[in-house]
Amino acid sequence: MRLSRLLRLQALLYNKNEKRLAASIKHMVGSKPFNLALYKLAIKHASVADESINGLKLSNERLEFLGDAVLGAIVAEFLYLKFPYRDEGFLTETRSRIVNREALNQIAIKIGLAKLINEELKNKNVIGNKSINGDTLEALIGAIYLDRGYKFTKKFILKRIIIHFDVDNIITTTSNFKSKLIEWAQKESKDIEFKLLSVNGTQRFKEFEIEVIVENKIITTGKGATKKKAEQEASKNACENLNIPI
Amino acid sequence: MRLSRLLRLQALLYNKNEKRLAASIKHMVGSKPFNLALYKLAIKHASVADESINGLKLSNERLEFLGDAVLGAIVAEFLYLKFPYRDEGFLTETRSRIVNREALNQIAIKIGLAKLINEELKNKNVIGNKSINGDTLEALIGAIYLDRGYKFTKKFILKRIIIHFDVDNIITTTSNFKSKLIEWAQKESKDIEFKLLSVNGTQRFKEFEIEVIVENKIITTGKGATKKKAEQEASKNACENLNIPI
Repeated sequence: MRLSRLLRLQALLYNKNEKRLAASIKHMVGSKPFNLALYKLAIKHASVADESINGLKLSNERLEFLGDAVLGAIVAEFLYLKFPYRDEGFLTETRSRIVNREALNQIAIKIGLAKLINEELKNKNVIGNKSINGDTLEALIGAIYLDRGYKFTKKFILKRIIIHFDVDNIITTTSNFKSKLIEWAQKESKDIEFKLLSVNGTQRFKEFEIEVIVENKIITTGKGATKKKAEQEASKNACENLNIPI
Repeated sequence: MRLSRLLRLQALLYNKNEKRLAASIKHMVGSKPFNLALYKLAIKHASVADESINGLKLSNERLEFLGDAVLGAIVAEFLYLKFPYRDEGFLTETRSRIVNREALNQIAIKIGLAKLINEELKNKNVIGNKSINGDTLEALIGAIYLDRGYKFTKKFILKRIIIHFDVDNIITTTSNFKSKLIEWAQKESKDIEFKLLSVNGTQRFKEFEIEVIVENKIITTGKGATKKKAEQEASKNACENLNIPI
């Protein structure tokens, strides 16, 4: 705690921009930052990053990697505790609907992060990169984690991120990837086929493998403990592969 | 802490099997379990699970989901701090080499978890499911997390899991997915092609998309900020798709 107190003393030396950033962070996160440098890095998108001496771009991508992982763990625990009677397939899918790029982009706008990013990027001639808000939100989570630790980050995610989701609504509309895929194929007038590749295992413990074939081309495969689960998995992969929004 | 003390009192009522399990856990984890029920669940593989009233199988799969996420976050932080000058692509790949199923299977054997699983499964006519050890290790991590919290779990993973990896060796042998794929194609006498699908963005911030085509069939695509990264991503997906060991 001594180090953090020292870091707080730095606040006396903040310049005007730093003061503004610290105030924004406090607003978003609920508490003043200890180590402002982490948050400066968190809002530094790769497209405006400076190259450092050894060739590494000083951008928020490393923090995004960390934040993504921390967010994944905290949302996993949230869902584990919230849905004691649902299986892991449900938990996995519900999580992917919460932490998907589009949802995170929306949250970044809601908590005011998008505005901060716009200020950072203005006059920098950056093209409209759609995922920049969500990416930066993950980087911010990484910065909060390093600055304040796990407990604090968990509180931030539960009180200021997940609160924006109508989780019960999400689960009732949880994607049926196979039907999404079929819908898409009909719209695009493409032939689609789900082919059972293999069934392994014994009666107690089986594994099915399904192949998705579009216009006679194998797009993806998927495995699962039931034929339905394997189809869902293969279809989900196919949706990702074919850029079908889910 | 009062609850945990109460849970420890339960230890007085353990039957013979429970006493043995608690001792094994203490050996593996470094400290007595507070809530033994979590660890009992962690070693309950789906193939030996009992069906509960509402149709949910009481197996370790939910704990595995949670443990996988927690492990991912802790390894992410470990790598973030250990390699301050490496980019997120490197961090992502190194992590996937640490938390992959085969590596976790090996760790499960090393820490004695595999033996415990064998005892649990004996006389149960379970087929040789290769990933059962790694799956159970993840479930164990989930149980430790719920039982003892994040800090304790982090210590467990750093001191008793990651210690088994020669991380420096892993990074020098880190897969080149494209060359793995080409190697495979040569061995199988298959035509392989990497096709540049698109380049988006401005000079500062580009995104390449590469398609992997084997015997005139599109297998996967991959995106990246450079052509090389996109090729690696596409090749990695293709290796997964084609079940090529990486």
